[in-house]
Amino acid sequence: MSKTGPIQKPIFTSARDVEAAFYEALAHSDLEAMMAVWSEDEEVICVHPGGPRLQGLTAVRESWRELFDGNPRLDIRITQGVAQNFMMVAVHSVLEFISLEGDEQLGPPMIATNIYSRGPDGWRMVMHHASPAPEERSLMVQDAPRTVH
Amino acid sequence: MSKTGPIQKPIFTSARDVEAAFYEALAHSDLEAMMAVWSEDEEVICVHPGGPRLQGLTAVRESWRELFDGNPRLDIRITQGVAQNFMMVAVHSVLEFISLEGDEQLGPPMIATNIYSRGPDGWRMVMHHASPAPEERSLMVQDAPRTVH
Repeated sequence: MSKTGPIQKPIFTSARDVEAAFYEALAHSDLEAMMAVWSEDEEVICVHPGGPRLQGLTAVRESWRELFDGNPRLDIRITQGVAQNFMMVAVHSVLEFISLEGDEQLGPPMIATNIYSRGPDGWRMVMHHASPAPEERSLMVQDAPRTVH
Repeated sequence: MSKTGPIQKPIFTSARDVEAAFYEALAHSDLEAMMAVWSEDEEVICVHPGGPRLQGLTAVRESWRELFDGNPRLDIRITQGVAQNFMMVAVHSVLEFISLEGDEQLGPPMIATNIYSRGPDGWRMVMHHASPAPEERSLMVQDAPRTVH
């Protein structure tokens, strides 16, 4: 419980909703909104690009607090989403293009694995693992579509 | 079907068994053993450290074939495993220390997210996302154990 009383966390009804809220919180450096997307399991893991592995809500929160210091506003483009959906878990892979708002230069692309689970309080994030991708032309290698005729 | 006929794939009865087989195949540059751990879902994803996002078995297989070229034997140490277990899915986070066999110098640590799902043919890998970790002293940040008394 914080000094200002318990915070009413939103209930997310899909992994997709959690993901949208995650990137919205990131874009606006909104720490409370960011932490509201995370599961409260002790095993939650967050890996920022090039950073250490953070485990547990306290470590995860502290990392976002530091990243949000200075209150940056970010332009975020999420592309090439691939979802693997299971009964209580969704595994998303996305490419992130992040830059400071108003900055013409696009930030380097990141490959992010985002994992969500469904619990009694709806869907929440349980893992975020982001790492720098190589230059854009070789960003993604995908099996060729299968010709079926 | 390969030229030598269909390959009998092993049935893994736990995510832990798949993970052991994955690192065993990696240590021995064993392509068939490596591919036997992967799910045959089209959405499987593999990200080698610093590499592009690979989607689908053909792209994943080709990447391992290239990495196994020259048939390197590797020493692999897996530490600091954290498991998040769900009904049909297991999300593992590990630190990998990989070096050439006989090489005194320990390779740089990698943070790996390994995801396994349970299907009709047992447990299989559906995602491997590995990326370089910062230097060892700051490898892992974890919430302090909670004092309960």
